Amino acid sequence: MAQLFAGMRAHQVFGADTEVGKTIFSTGYALAGTLCSADASVRGPRTLAPRADAERVAYLKPVSTGPPHEMDAGHLQQYAPWVHSSTMLQFAEPVSPHLASVQKAGTLPHDAHDAQIVSGIGAWLLQQARASVPAAAIIETAGGVNSPAPSGSSQADLLRPLRLPVVLVGSSKLGGISTTRSALESLRMRGYDVEAVLMFPSQRYQNDAYLQSLLAEEYAIPVFALGGPNGDGWGAPPVRAVCDEEDHARMRDYYIGLVHGREDGSGTSMLDVVRHLRAAHAKRLARLSTMASKTREVCWWPFTQHGRYTDEDVMVIDSAYGDFFAVHNNTPQTSLLAPALDGSASWWTQVLGHGHARLGAAAAYAAGRYGHVLFPGATNEPALALSETLLGKRPLSFSAPGHGWASRVFFSDDGSTAMEVALKMAIQSSVRRYAEGEGEDREWQVLGLQGSYHGDTIGVMDACEPSVYSDHVAWYKGRGYWLAPPTLRVKHGKVHVIVRPNRDWAHWERDTARDEIHLATFDSMQEAYDVTRRMQHGELYENYRAMLHTTLTRLVRDEGRRFGALVLEPLVMGAGGMLFVDPLFQRCLVDVVREQAALFGGKHVSRTPSQWQGLPVIYDEIFTGLFRIGIPSAADVLGTSPDIACYAKILSGGLVPLSATLASSSIFDTFAHSDEKTRALLHGHSYTAHPVGCSVALETFAILDEMHMRGDWAKHQEDWGSTTIWSFWNKQFVQRLSAYAHVESVMALGTVLKIALVDQDAGAPSVSAQRRRARKR
Amino acid sequence: MAQLFAGMRAHQVFGADTEVGKTIFSTGYALAGTLCSADASVRGPRTLAPRADAERVAYLKPVSTGPPHEMDAGHLQQYAPWVHSSTMLQFAEPVSPHLASVQKAGTLPHDAHDAQIVSGIGAWLLQQARASVPAAAIIETAGGVNSPAPSGSSQADLLRPLRLPVVLVGSSKLGGISTTRSALESLRMRGYDVEAVLMFPSQRYQNDAYLQSLLAEEYAIPVFALGGPNGDGWGAPPVRAVCDEEDHARMRDYYIGLVHGREDGSGTSMLDVVRHLRAAHAKRLARLSTMASKTREVCWWPFTQHGRYTDEDVMVIDSAYGDFFAVHNNTPQTSLLAPALDGSASWWTQVLGHGHARLGAAAAYAAGRYGHVLFPGATNEPALALSETLLGKRPLSFSAPGHGWASRVFFSDDGSTAMEVALKMAIQSSVRRYAEGEGEDREWQVLGLQGSYHGDTIGVMDACEPSVYSDHVAWYKGRGYWLAPPTLRVKHGKVHVIVRPNRDWAHWERDTARDEIHLATFDSMQEAYDVTRRMQHGELYENYRAMLHTTLTRLVRDEGRRFGALVLEPLVMGAGGMLFVDPLFQRCLVDVVREQAALFGGKHVSRTPSQWQGLPVIYDEIFTGLFRIGIPSAADVLGTSPDIACYAKILSGGLVPLSATLASSSIFDTFAHSDEKTRALLHGHSYTAHPVGCSVALETFAILDEMHMRGDWAKHQEDWGSTTIWSFWNKQFVQRLSAYAHVESVMALGTVLKIALVDQDAGAPSVSAQRRRARKR
Repeated sequence: MAQLFAGMRAHQVFGADTEVGKTIFSTGYALAGTLCSADASVRGPRTLAPRADAERVAYLKPVSTGPPHEMDAGHLQQYAPWVHSSTMLQFAEPVSPHLASVQKAGTLPHDAHDAQIVSGIGAWLLQQARASVPAAAIIETAGGVNSPAPSGSSQADLLRPLRLPVVLVGSSKLGGISTTRSALESLRMRGYDVEAVLMFPSQRYQNDAYLQSLLAEEYAIPVFALGGPNGDGWGAPPVRAVCDEEDHARMRDYYIGLVHGREDGSGTSMLDVVRHLRAAHAKRLARLSTMASKTREVCWWPFTQHGRYTDEDVMVIDSAYGDFFAVHNNTPQTSLLAPALDGSASWWTQVLGHGHARLGAAAAYAAGRYGHVLFPGATNEPALALSETLLGKRPLSFSAPGHGWASRVFFSDDGSTAMEVALKMAIQSSVRRYAEGEGEDREWQVLGLQGSYHGDTIGVMDACEPSVYSDHVAWYKGRGYWLAPPTLRVKHGKVHVIVRPNRDWAHWERDTARDEIHLATFDSMQEAYDVTRRMQHGELYENYRAMLHTTLTRLVRDEGRRFGALVLEPLVMGAGGMLFVDPLFQRCLVDVVREQAALFGGKHVSRTPSQWQGLPVIYDEIFTGLFRIGIPSAADVLGTSPDIACYAKILSGGLVPLSATLASSSIFDTFAHSDEKTRALLHGHSYTAHPVGCSVALETFAILDEMHMRGDWAKHQEDWGSTTIWSFWNKQFVQRLSAYAHVESVMALGTVLKIALVDQDAGAPSVSAQRRRARKR
Repeated sequence: MAQLFAGMRAHQVFGADTEVGKTIFSTGYALAGTLCSADASVRGPRTLAPRADAERVAYLKPVSTGPPHEMDAGHLQQYAPWVHSSTMLQFAEPVSPHLASVQKAGTLPHDAHDAQIVSGIGAWLLQQARASVPAAAIIETAGGVNSPAPSGSSQADLLRPLRLPVVLVGSSKLGGISTTRSALESLRMRGYDVEAVLMFPSQRYQNDAYLQSLLAEEYAIPVFALGGPNGDGWGAPPVRAVCDEEDHARMRDYYIGLVHGREDGSGTSMLDVVRHLRAAHAKRLARLSTMASKTREVCWWPFTQHGRYTDEDVMVIDSAYGDFFAVHNNTPQTSLLAPALDGSASWWTQVLGHGHARLGAAAAYAAGRYGHVLFPGATNEPALALSETLLGKRPLSFSAPGHGWASRVFFSDDGSTAMEVALKMAIQSSVRRYAEGEGEDREWQVLGLQGSYHGDTIGVMDACEPSVYSDHVAWYKGRGYWLAPPTLRVKHGKVHVIVRPNRDWAHWERDTARDEIHLATFDSMQEAYDVTRRMQHGELYENYRAMLHTTLTRLVRDEGRRFGALVLEPLVMGAGGMLFVDPLFQRCLVDVVREQAALFGGKHVSRTPSQWQGLPVIYDEIFTGLFRIGIPSAADVLGTSPDIACYAKILSGGLVPLSATLASSSIFDTFAHSDEKTRALLHGHSYTAHPVGCSVALETFAILDEMHMRGDWAKHQEDWGSTTIWSFWNKQFVQRLSAYAHVESVMALGTVLKIALVDQDAGAPSVSAQRRRARKR
C-alpha cells in the first residue's frame, strides 16, 4: 500500500512516452541528490562527486527489458556509482515487458505478479528508509505511463497501490505536447500527484514553454526544461561517441551541466528540481500532520460527539485503494501511511473497491459529455440505460432488481430521499384509493418493524419507531405501528429464530429466563432462508399469519388506525443493529397485508405483480440491495416482489451520491392517470438522474455482470451450498466464531459479517467499539 | 455545436501521436467509402475506382502545417481525386499549429479563433450533408489529441463542441500502447465516443493485439490492424521511392491492399471499417429516435404530469457543452442535433458551462485517489480544503460565504437535505436554550416568508406554508408562520417595492385597485439594494420594525406560538416564482428577531456574529449563493450574517450532488458541549463529504477566483454601476423589456433574468410556458 517516510522522499518516474530520457533524468536527479546539502541553499563546485552532508539516494528499476549491458540501472551505476541501484526483474528482449515476459515464460503471467511487484517495491522502499536519512528514492518505470507491466496491466494501474508522488518525464519531440498532456491526464485520473515535469528544452517545438504555462495554470505543476552541453549547444544528451572513453567523458560533462545548470546561472538545473521536490515533500508532511486538528476545527461530522475525539483519534485518509484506506500515522521508522481496512465499506457504499479505474473513467466520460443536464421532460443516455437496466430491460446474467414487477424509475440523491419519494408514492396511492374526497381527519400511518431505519430526513424518520436517532429531533413524530420482528442468529453452529415478547406475541410460549420466544432452529442458513419450503412444511407460517391477522385487526378495527404503506428492510435491518429478520415472517407479513385489502378499505382482488393490493409494500433495499448480502434483491429470497423499492449506496459503485426509487405501474398510474399537473409527484432534486452518477452505476452493473459470468463468487456459493444464500466469509470460520463464549451470536450473508459480542450497553449510544479501538492503539 | 446527419456519417480522425498514419488511414477510409456499395455486403474488384452506387466522401483538414506540397489534403487528392477535400487553415512551418500561427501572425491569436474554426467546420459539414446522400465526412486533426490548435487550445478541447464520433489512429511504435491508451483516455474524459481504433499491424511489438483485447473488454471499441503491401511484407506504407512515378505506383498498390485487404481474404480491411462505422451510425440514429418513447415508458420524471408529454415533447439530450444542450430533433436536411439553450442552467446547477474539462478532470482525480471514503471521525484533503474555503480560511479574491461568522461545515447531498440539517441544528438549539427539561407540549415552529421553498423532503416542506407542492402530500404539516414579503419589481425602468396586504399590513395604505401596498420607488437597483443607506435615510425601516414587532408579539403572546428558527431565502425566492424580496425588509426581520430575544424566551445580550440571539437565523442560499445572483453570499447585501446557511447547486460546479450546511460556533456548541453521544447531531448520509464532489467544488472555487481576479464580469458591474448589485444582462435591455405592455415586470440580478408576463394562471399548476413552447414548435 501507499508509503510515505518523514526522512526520505520517494518518487515514481513515469515517461510521457518511451525514449524521452527517463534514465537520463533519473541519473541526473540521483546525482543532484548526492550533491545537494541539507539546506540546499548554496551551489557547490561543478563536479559530480557526492557531498558528505548530502542525502543518500537509492534507485530502483522494478522491471527492465533489453540486454543486461543496456540496463538503465547499469547506466546509472556508471555515472553515479555511489547511488544504491537495483533492478527487480530483467528481461533480455527490448520490447514491452508483457511480451518480454511471455517470450521468457511462454505464457502471460498471472495477475498475482502485479501484487508481487508492488509488495517488492514496498519492501525495497522500507529498506531504503531504514538505511539512512535524509534520503531520496526513485523508481523508474518502463516505457510510457500506460505501457504494460509483465502481467499486462498498465504501469500506472500496477503501481497505483503505492501512489508515490510522480516525476513525469515529458516529451520534447514533435507531438510531445500531446503525449505529455495525455500522460499527465492518465496519471491524474488514477489519483496520482504529479509533482514535477522534467523535459529537455526544445528550441524548435517549444514544448517546454507551452507545457510550462499550461500546467502552471491548470494544475500548479512546474515544468523544468533541463539540459546539458551536447556538442551542439544545450539540450538533450550528446550523440554517442564511437570510442567508449570519449563517450563516457562527454556524458560526464553532460551530467555536470544537467545537475549544476549553465555556468552563468541562467535557466534551471537538477538541483532546482531537488529543492522543489524537497519543498513539496515537506509541505505534504506538514499538511498531513495538521489535517486532524484542522478538521476538528472546521468540520462537523455526522453522528459524532466531537468532544470524544482528540487529534490522534481522527483517521486522516491520504488515499484509498481496493479495500484499504492509506491512513496517516506518526509511527517513526515505518511508513507514515498505514493501510486500514475499510471495514464498513465506507458506510456500505463500496463494492468494487476504492480507486477503481473503470468507475473513475466512466465518471470522467459522463462529465465530459454532459456535465449535469436537466431531467424532467428530458432524457440522457446514462439515465435511460440505467433505468432500463434496473427494470431488467437490458441483458444481465443476474436478475435485475425491478425485473418482473417494476415499471418506473425515479431518481434522487441518497437513500433518505429515495425513501421520502417512496413514502410519498405509497401513502398518496392509499389516499387516492381509500380516501379520495374525504376530509383529512385521521393520520396516515405506516406499518413496519421495530429496529427499522430509513434515513435521516424527517419524513423517513417519521416512518420509524422512536429511538435515539429521534430523541433530539423536535419535529420527529413517529406515525406508524412497528411489529417486533423474529430474527435469526447463529450460536454453536445452529440457526435460531427468536423474538422478543410483547403484546402481539402474548399467546406464544416464552423463555422467561432469556425474555424471548424461541420460534425455530435450523441446521443451516440454507434451510432457514428456504422460504418456499418453510411455507409448505411446518406450522410457523400459519402461526405467523394468525398472529398478524389478529394484530392488524386490532390496530385497524379497535384502535382506528389508518395505514398507508407497509415498509420493510428485507432480510437485514442495517442501522438498527444488523438485525437478520426471519424471511418467513416478512413474507407472511406481505402476504397478510395483501390478503387483508378489506381491512384497509379496499376489495380483495387477485393480484398481479404490477397491481398493489391492501397496502403498497415498500422494500428499502438501500443497504441490502445489489449484492451486499449476496443477491441482487431480497425479493428473490422472500419470493414476493414489492410495489416500491429503493436502491442507493452500491448503486453508484461507491463513488458519488445517487439513488433510485422503483415503482410498479399501479403506483405510477395513481399519479399519471390525471391530466392535472398538481396530481403529479411534485418532488425532485437539482441533480436528478445526473449523468455522472448514472454512468458510474451502469459501469458498476457491467463489472458485476462480468464478475457474475466469470463465476467470481461461485466458490463461496459452493462453500455455503447455495446460490441464493451464501457469504464471502468462510462457513467453518463463521461457525467456529459462533461457539466463542464472549460471542453472543454470529450471522453472515454476502459481504456482511455480524459478530454480536456480549455487551450490556449496545446501540447508538454505545462507545464500546470506540473504547476497544482506543485500547488497541 | 454538435452535428449529426441521417444520411451522412461524419468522423473526427485523431492521432495517438504525430506520424502514426492519420493521413494514410484517412485516405484509405475515403477510398473505401467511394468503393463500398450501399449494402456493403459484396467485395468489389480490387481497384480504387469509385463505384457509382457508393457514398459521396468529403475530407477536411481544418488546420494544416508544413509546405503546401506536403499537405495532407494534397496526398489524399493524389490517390483519391474524386473525394471532396479541402483545408481551412494552412501554415507553412511543419511545427505545431500554435507556433506556426505565431510565426505567421507574430502573436498568439485570440481565443475567438477556436469558435471560428468550430463554426467553419460546422458550416462545411452542413454543406457536405446537403450535397448528396449517402455520404461520409472525415475531419483530420493535426498532431496528437492534445496537440495545440492555432489558439493554443488542445485539439480535443477545440473540437469538443462538435463532439463528432472519433476514429483514433493508434500508434504501432514501441511505446505505442501507452500513447494510444492515454490518447483514448484523454478523448473519453472529454466526452468523445471513440468508435474505432485504426493502426498498422506490428509483428514485433504486438500493440494491436494488446489494444484489441484491452479496448474490447473495457470500452467495447474495436481495434482494426490494417496494412497493405510495402515491399517488405504487409504493414505500414512502403518507403518512399526515389522516382515519383514509382512511388505513386507503390502507394496505389498499397492503398488497394489497405482498402480491400489481403487477397486471401484473411485479416481486416478498410471496407470492414466502413461497414463497422456505418453500423455504429445506424445504431446511434436508431437509439436516438427511440429514446423519447423509451424514456416515457420507464422513467418517472420529477414534477411532471406524464400525460402531457408526447414523444415529440421530450428533450433528448445527446450531449451538452457550454450553455447549450445538443438536442435530438427529426428535422431532415439540417443536423439531427440542434443546440438548445439551457435556460434554467439545469435547475440552477450550472455556472461554468456543461462539459467543462477542468471540472471533469478534478472529478476523475478524486475518483482515482479515493473513490468515496468514510467521513465521520475521519478526514480527506478535498473535504477539509473545501471546508476551509467555505469558511474563508484559504485565500480567495472574494469573500467566502462563511467568512466572519461560520465556524463549521456539515456536508450532505442536496439542498433539501442541507436544509433538513439546518432545521435540526436551529430548532434543537432553541429547544436546548429555551426548553431544556420541559415537557414537549407546544409545537416548535419556524418564522418565514410566504412563497418560500426549501426542498421536497417532508421536514423542509413543513417549514413552508401550504402550497400546490404540499396539497397532495398526506404527511405535510406546515409548522410556522409566514409573513407576506415586500418584493421588488422593475416596471417602466423604475424599481418598485410592493406588498400584498394582509392582517399584518392592516395599518398600511393600500392601493385598492391593484390590491397591493406600495412601499417605495427607486430610480435604480443600486439604490434599492443599498441597505445601509436605506436604514439611515427614510422611515421605511422603522415602519417595518414596528409592524414586525407588533406581529411577532401577537404571534407569541396572543397566539401562544413557539418559534425555533427564522428561515429565509435571502433576496430571491426561486421556486416560489422568482420573488425578489425587499432586502431592507429581510434585514429588518433579522434585526427584530435578534432584538426580541426576550419574546422567544431568552435574554437580550449584545450579539457577536458567532453567537445566535432570539432565534437561530437560517439563510437558504441554495439558489442564491455562489454568484447565481452576482455575489458570493446575500449576507453581503443584507449587511448581517446568519447563524446557519445552506449551499448546493453551483457548489459542486454543476456536476454531481453535494451540499453544505454552515453553522456558527454557538450552534455547533449546542451539540458539542456534551459528552453524550445521543446529544450529537445524529444525521448523516452515506456519501457525506464525498471526495469527488468536494474536489469538483474546490476546482469550481478556483476557476471562479481566477475569473474574479481577471475581472471577467467587471464590465457587467460597470454597466450596472455597482460591484455588489449587477447583472449579466445589459441594463438598457432590461429597462426596455420592463416597458412592454405584456410584460408585467422585470428583474435582473447576476445570471438571473425574470420576465413576469401578464398571466392570470401563474404558478406551479400553470402550463402556459409549456403551451407557449408547443405553439412555437
